[in-house]
Amino acid sequence: MAKIITISREYGSGGHVIGEKVAERLGIPFYDSLIITEAAEKTGIAEETVKKVSEDASAANKYINAGFAHRMNMVDRQDKVFNAQREIILEYAKQGPCVIVGRCSDIILEEAGIDCLNVFIHADIDYRVEKAKTEYGLEDCDEKLVRKVDKSRKYYYRYYADRGWGEYEYNQLILDSGKIGEDRCVDIIISAAE
Amino acid sequence: MAKIITISREYGSGGHVIGEKVAERLGIPFYDSLIITEAAEKTGIAEETVKKVSEDASAANKYINAGFAHRMNMVDRQDKVFNAQREIILEYAKQGPCVIVGRCSDIILEEAGIDCLNVFIHADIDYRVEKAKTEYGLEDCDEKLVRKVDKSRKYYYRYYADRGWGEYEYNQLILDSGKIGEDRCVDIIISAAE
Repeated sequence: MAKIITISREYGSGGHVIGEKVAERLGIPFYDSLIITEAAEKTGIAEETVKKVSEDASAANKYINAGFAHRMNMVDRQDKVFNAQREIILEYAKQGPCVIVGRCSDIILEEAGIDCLNVFIHADIDYRVEKAKTEYGLEDCDEKLVRKVDKSRKYYYRYYADRGWGEYEYNQLILDSGKIGEDRCVDIIISAAE
Repeated sequence: MAKIITISREYGSGGHVIGEKVAERLGIPFYDSLIITEAAEKTGIAEETVKKVSEDASAANKYINAGFAHRMNMVDRQDKVFNAQREIILEYAKQGPCVIVGRCSDIILEEAGIDCLNVFIHADIDYRVEKAKTEYGLEDCDEKLVRKVDKSRKYYYRYYADRGWGEYEYNQLILDSGKIGEDRCVDIIISAAE
C-alpha cells in the first residue's frame, strides 16, 4: 500500500516530472499546480497572484521596505493563500495515497498526524540551469534566476514550517536527480514508498 | 560499473551494516574499522587512541579548558591520525570501487577529484537507541549517549571538511533507515550506484 508522498524540490531539479511519473506508476493522484487553481477559487484571489505569493519569499521579508499598510496587506494575502492551500492539501490526504509537490505539504501533513514519505530532490546548479533552458523553455535562464527561485522556496518553507528546507531530519529520502538520473529517482521513490 | 561509495551515518542508524551488505552484493571491498587499524600502524599511535580521536569532537574544541601544551598535543595527535587516514583512504580509492564508512572520506576523495556516490544515513532517535541496545549490545544506551556520538562525528566533520554534516548539497543520496528499512536502503544504494 503506497503512502502519501510529499516532494520538495530545488528549482530545475525535475521534481515535478519525477513526482508525476511516481504517481502515474503507482496509479495515485498527483497534485502540483492544481493546488494553485483551487486556492484561487477558495480565496477569490486571482490565480496569478496566488502563484506569485505561493512558495515565494515570505511577504514579511519581501515587503520589508514597503509602507506598513501595503506590507500588512501582502502578509495577510500570503497567509490567506497558505491557509487555503493547507485545507486543500488536507482534503487531498483524506482521500488516500497521492503525490503532493511543494507548498510545505510535509509539515502540514505532519502537524495533522498523517504519516508520509517526505522526499527532497536537488541537483547541482549547472544541471538545473540547463534543464530550465531546454525543458522549461526559459532560454535566458541563468544561475542567478535559479538561485532566486530556490531562495523564495527556502524562505517560504522556513517562514511557514519554522525549520530548514531540505534538512535530513525531516526527509526520509533526499536525492540528487542530476547524479542519479530522473528515471532512477522514480524507481527509488517507489521502492521507498512500498 | 560500481563507483566508490562513501557512507556517513548517524550513530545507531545501521550505516555500517548497510555499507557491508552493499559491498558484499557488489563484490567490492568494504572499509570501516580497518582504517583505524591501519592508521595505528602508520602513525605508531595506539589503536585505542586512534579510535578515540577518530571521528571524535575536534581536539581543539574538546580540550579547550585543558592546559595549552596538553591541548596542542591532542590537536597535533588528531591531525596526525586524520592525515594518516586520509592517505589510507586515497590508497583504497586507487584500487577501484569500494565502500568506505565515515572519516570524512567524502571530502577527502572530492578534494582529490575522485567521483563518488556520497550517502548519508540517519534515523529517528528512538530507533537508534533501540538498535544500540539490541544490536550493538549496549544495554544501558540512552538518547544522551547516542546524541553525544553524533555530536562528535558532526564536530569532526565540520572541523576537517569545513561544511555541515548531512547537508544535501554534498550527498547524492540521504536515507532514513528507520523508515525505509535497512534492506531496502541496500537496494536503493545499489540502484543509485549503478
